[in-house]
Amino acid sequence: MIAFMASEFSRRRRIEFAETDMAGIVHFAAFFRFMEETEALFWRSRGCSMFGRGEEGGYGWPKVRVFCEYLAPVYFEDVLETRLVVEKVGERSIVFGFRFWKCSGESGEPEKEIARGELKVACVPMERRAERELKAVPIPKELKEKLRE
Amino acid sequence: MIAFMASEFSRRRRIEFAETDMAGIVHFAAFFRFMEETEALFWRSRGCSMFGRGEEGGYGWPKVRVFCEYLAPVYFEDVLETRLVVEKVGERSIVFGFRFWKCSGESGEPEKEIARGELKVACVPMERRAERELKAVPIPKELKEKLRE
Amino acid sequence: MIAFMASEFSRRRRIEFAETDMAGIVHFAAFFRFMEETEALFWRSRGCSMFGRGEEGGYGWPKVRVFCEYLAPVYFEDVLETRLVVEKVGERSIVFGFRFWKCSGESGEPEKEIARGELKVACVPMERRAERELKAVPIPKELKEKLRE
Amino acid sequence: MIAFMASEFSRRRRIEFAETDMAGIVHFAAFFRFMEETEALFWRSRGCSMFGRGEEGGYGWPKVRVFCEYLAPVYFEDVLETRLVVEKVGERSIVFGFRFWKCSGESGEPEKEIARGELKVACVPMERRAERELKAVPIPKELKEKLRE
Repeated sequence: MIAFMASEFSRRRRIEFAETDMAGIVHFAAFFRFMEETEALFWRSRGCSMFGRGEEGGYGWPKVRVFCEYLAPVYFEDVLETRLVVEKVGERSIVFGFRFWKCSGESGEPEKEIARGELKVACVPMERRAERELKAVPIPKELKEKLRE
Repeated sequence: MIAFMASEFSRRRRIEFAETDMAGIVHFAAFFRFMEETEALFWRSRGCSMFGRGEEGGYGWPKVRVFCEYLAPVYFEDVLETRLVVEKVGERSIVFGFRFWKCSGESGEPEKEIARGELKVACVPMERRAERELKAVPIPKELKEKLRE
Repeated sequence: MIAFMASEFSRRRRIEFAETDMAGIVHFAAFFRFMEETEALFWRSRGCSMFGRGEEGGYGWPKVRVFCEYLAPVYFEDVLETRLVVEKVGERSIVFGFRFWKCSGESGEPEKEIARGELKVACVPMERRAERELKAVPIPKELKEKLRE
Repeated sequence: MIAFMASEFSRRRRIEFAETDMAGIVHFAAFFRFMEETEALFWRSRGCSMFGRGEEGGYGWPKVRVFCEYLAPVYFEDVLETRLVVEKVGERSIVFGFRFWKCSGESGEPEKEIARGELKVACVPMERRAERELKAVPIPKELKEKLRE
């Protein structure tokens, strides 16, 4: 188990209307979409795809264990910043940590911490998917290196 | 173009919390999920699947054109009945019509019409999907017969 | 009924993983979220909010009738451009028209038309919402002017 | 902190098409909707609502901390059973535990454990919601009794 801290990676976007619920706030499950959107963006920033679409040697990253804790509500049109860190790179899995901050605008200051979460994902080659078993394999060396960049 | 009216097919379920938005009502896009859920149930009632998972001769039914009009709002925990009719069976497509009624309870009377909608779906063999083109083919005779049952 | 064409308004973003379905393409209902996201952005560009949160004189815009037709599939990580035009401004409602284009990259050329849709929305004052009736009122003059900008 | 085990509570339903993603399996975030749907059903079985809609003395239960771990994938049209137990009743919060089982049919045997999860929810009176602060209060005695039934 190699543990290290990659440089922080983040993205901002406004809360959409469809992400709210009748309590007037963002539905709690939407935060898992925010995490995954940022995970996908992180992979793209490394020149990869979170889901190798059928190409030879492609990998997918099904979730193994996820959590989120909620510190304060966010509302429609609030600007939310999602920050990702690579918390752990294991033999066959990665742990991404997330922090969510409400910001004063699209280019403004972070104002309030909203939530914290985690996605543990496993490395599964695309060809395994067809077999209807999601067996994790060792993460290829080239991918491990990209995570450290 | 063969046009006919199949006997009405329906299902009821309660509105879930995650289906509401900050206006306190069901989000308009949720009605398309209600339609598709009923479409899938309709196919199962005919001994088929709406999405033939890879098996030889399987078909998928991508949407070609859809609409919904909204007559009255529905709320969390309301019982909604979705009624499906096969409006048209064309050479390569089917039009399903939907009516939505709020009911006085899980086994109660329909009380108020909530919405009307339509899904036009095309017949696409599973093997075509891989080619990244969704070309519709003539609906097989056995499936057409199932629609008439 | 006043009909006019506002200058086109658009936004681009990548398709997220959670927006796909097991057919490997974007789920058809996601296009209604794309339309609403662009509608909200349009209102913000006019200095308003699509959902006046409780403030005096605020308005919401529940959907009255919506449709979408699908010309070609889009995939995970494709860049989709959503173009909005104000098609009609009626006494109590607005019709927004949408066209969806797949683009060759975040700053690249539009490549292929993917879908077309429409949202007809009604003007409902926030205080009416509490009464559990969504009665539309005449669109205030100041808002009509903002639509023409 | 009072800890106890309520009798298990469960519900079954089929996986819907819109709940799958391009990996061909149920999207991981959908499990949080399954948990919440079962939580809402649990409250109804106790004669309450998970979201007291404005009535005097009503309570909402925003999530404080949630997690899910995934043991095996589930697919479109699989029958999934969600089992809820009241794990802990605290002064101001409740922990619901969940286990997910794939079943051989709508009235068939549980076949395979799919996932485990947890929702920790806080007791917030409806009138507090308007103040845009979600401060938890002690759970009223009548509600605590209902949880024990």
